[in-house]
Amino acid sequence: MWRRHPKYGQFELTDQAWTVKRSRHVVQDRWISLRADDCVTSRGVEIAPYYVIERPGTVHVLASDQANRIVLVRQYRHAYGGLSLELPGGLIDAGETDVLAVAARELREETGYGGGHFEFAAALSVDPARYTNRINLVLAIGVAPGHATPEPTEDIEVVLMPRADLHALACSGGIINVAHLGLILLAFARANEARALG
Amino acid sequence: MWRRHPKYGQFELTDQAWTVKRSRHVVQDRWISLRADDCVTSRGVEIAPYYVIERPGTVHVLASDQANRIVLVRQYRHAYGGLSLELPGGLIDAGETDVLAVAARELREETGYGGGHFEFAAALSVDPARYTNRINLVLAIGVAPGHATPEPTEDIEVVLMPRADLHALACSGGIINVAHLGLILLAFARANEARALG
Repeated sequence: MWRRHPKYGQFELTDQAWTVKRSRHVVQDRWISLRADDCVTSRGVEIAPYYVIERPGTVHVLASDQANRIVLVRQYRHAYGGLSLELPGGLIDAGETDVLAVAARELREETGYGGGHFEFAAALSVDPARYTNRINLVLAIGVAPGHATPEPTEDIEVVLMPRADLHALACSGGIINVAHLGLILLAFARANEARALG
Repeated sequence: MWRRHPKYGQFELTDQAWTVKRSRHVVQDRWISLRADDCVTSRGVEIAPYYVIERPGTVHVLASDQANRIVLVRQYRHAYGGLSLELPGGLIDAGETDVLAVAARELREETGYGGGHFEFAAALSVDPARYTNRINLVLAIGVAPGHATPEPTEDIEVVLMPRADLHALACSGGIINVAHLGLILLAFARANEARALG
């Protein structure tokens, strides 16, 4: 899943890991799990408590339809206090291991789009200092419209956007979710790379 | 600060804002502020509690030295459990309003690099669903080495990387922090755009 860069490696392993002396959950319910770890750094400095947010992994899909438009969702985001245009996606349920199946389900639930070819692209972290989970990027090509079934709490507008428009919007600050901005620009950069390699 | 996209607008304002019936802090100390809002969506669906994480804004710097190498920092990230290669940066202190000054201070503290020309590039959100704060991107050109003064809890390795290597690494999954990936690819895309416009 991780391609190694020939020169700089992949930065996955370390002898700098902190030692956890004590760990407890401060808040744990259906919606959030906040863990407090009493840590000692590899240099012997105490950091207690250090707060970590445990969440299930998430999957987001950069899906293009048969006219090569990207399927996006626009919705209100309460912490931000405004609308955010993002990639469709959602949480990986407990026990689920098939990231592509989660991508297809979330895409269909939120937007109605389905079919097409799905491919795993990357597993990254939204905030490696605080979030334990991974954010996965899946690419989908050739999806077709269908019937959406969003959650009652969701109020989602589906937006179809040509690739060039999405790139321009992303570069102008119009994708305010920087994690989704990263996923979108990563997908575009890889597509450009693939084109350049022929 | 927000350039409007001619076609799609900027998605800042909305009549879909949730109504907050009750709000309290569940955890609030020096390190974290977790707020629980009892909300009602614009469609009348109750979401209670909805958790929000209040944090000060952050500033990150894409700085290049006189040989056009990018100044990066590699450090252990406890929630992720491994090393992460990121842009230098840090929190905006209470009362601070000069984002460029914060960028220069954090760059110098973490890496020793200073001087050069600083320019604001973007204000985005790491997680608009949960985080109230903004993540700011500042570009710095022509910085020069000096004496770093990291915090005792910080164990930072400074990495100088040519632009092309950083781009290749980012595209290969080597920047696991997707927010920093977004900032890096945004800066590169804008630089390409500027070059294309002459």
